[in-house]
Amino acid sequence: MKKSDLIIYECKKEKTCLFGTSYRKMFIAFDGIDGAGKSTIYKKIAHELEKNYSVQVFDMGCLGFLDDIIEGIKKGKYLCSAEIRECIYYFEGCLFSDLIVGKYLKDKYKHILIDRYLLSFLSYGPLNGVSIDKVSLLTSKMKWPDYYFYVDVQPEIALNRIKNKRNIVKPEIGYKNELETNEKENHAKFISHQTLVRKNFKQAIQFVGKKVYSINNDGDNDYALYEIRKVLGRELRC
Amino acid sequence: MKKSDLIIYECKKEKTCLFGTSYRKMFIAFDGIDGAGKSTIYKKIAHELEKNYSVQVFDMGCLGFLDDIIEGIKKGKYLCSAEIRECIYYFEGCLFSDLIVGKYLKDKYKHILIDRYLLSFLSYGPLNGVSIDKVSLLTSKMKWPDYYFYVDVQPEIALNRIKNKRNIVKPEIGYKNELETNEKENHAKFISHQTLVRKNFKQAIQFVGKKVYSINNDGDNDYALYEIRKVLGRELRC
Repeated sequence: MKKSDLIIYECKKEKTCLFGTSYRKMFIAFDGIDGAGKSTIYKKIAHELEKNYSVQVFDMGCLGFLDDIIEGIKKGKYLCSAEIRECIYYFEGCLFSDLIVGKYLKDKYKHILIDRYLLSFLSYGPLNGVSIDKVSLLTSKMKWPDYYFYVDVQPEIALNRIKNKRNIVKPEIGYKNELETNEKENHAKFISHQTLVRKNFKQAIQFVGKKVYSINNDGDNDYALYEIRKVLGRELRC
Repeated sequence: MKKSDLIIYECKKEKTCLFGTSYRKMFIAFDGIDGAGKSTIYKKIAHELEKNYSVQVFDMGCLGFLDDIIEGIKKGKYLCSAEIRECIYYFEGCLFSDLIVGKYLKDKYKHILIDRYLLSFLSYGPLNGVSIDKVSLLTSKMKWPDYYFYVDVQPEIALNRIKNKRNIVKPEIGYKNELETNEKENHAKFISHQTLVRKNFKQAIQFVGKKVYSINNDGDNDYALYEIRKVLGRELRC
């Protein structure tokens, strides 16, 4: 990351928040492949922000609009082709952006953090039969976050992270499906699939042409957290 | 319809349109059960408007965003439960409202007419497993038309209209599916289904609590066209 990418916000004293200090409300998104460490990182960042601010955390796919439909698809209650499942996710994303982000940023003293957002759609869509142009059209009204962090990791490291750090009974979709029948084969599938996803994330970042902070997380999370704190700058210390 | 419902627009001379006259651009929606006569009526109204204005006609479900998905569902290419198909339609409606209506009303000198809109969603949704409250939430950002005409007709009359006026090889969905195996039974199914849809349309109009012009079209189309012309008033004569 070049130094010029770093944006340091000054405290703005015009507006007083619920906690007696003032700040610019932020909409922050985290994205990356399965096992990149997104959840660990955004939870730590949320925790740090919470010391001084009110923070609302969201998880794409559990936003309250189409939860029952998305859960129904996952559990096989609803029949659904991959292309259609993708569109349901985009609809959820559009509703979130339209009804939640706008509302929080206008009316409440809250930072918004989201785990997975537009770049996931642009990366997974082409792997599920929806072209990047089509995904882009269908999601064209989604608000771009104030800060978008792409947590980059090598698929092999992501796999080890999933195997070592998470409850192996509930690993990610794609890794889980056949895990119990042939673990080795499924590890290979995970690697090949996430290699494609990672490539697509990088293409998606080029495609949107907007500022995305690409944060390497091959090591422990400390380096990534350090980089993210630098970007968010003084916001965390207001 | 009470006289107070009639809104007559004066020509506005401040703005000159492409055709040398001036007018307030209108977004007009037509809705009603299958066989209500919507298509016949909105095509005639569009034709009349076209004498003096530029008019863009849309057909919900053929708007260009999810055409391939919707066609794929209809043709059995994509697997899809009824609830999910409904959500795909709502997404199409939201995209239409967000990307098309706004654009035309802001940037172009065009009236927009649409065949089926929000009231269809609110009426058919509950018959396909999505509650009216849920439909309302999912479509809450859709723009309300300047004029919304609900073309009301008795299902028996609608059925006769479909049988007599349309190419029977391609009648409406729900009527078509089993037509060739047992015509009489399917007529009964059409009546019972459209009776529910009609009841739901009336409930939906109450539910939204916004102005909807309910136009009776049990007779020939002339009465309905007369009523609609009265509502649109001088717009047609600018």
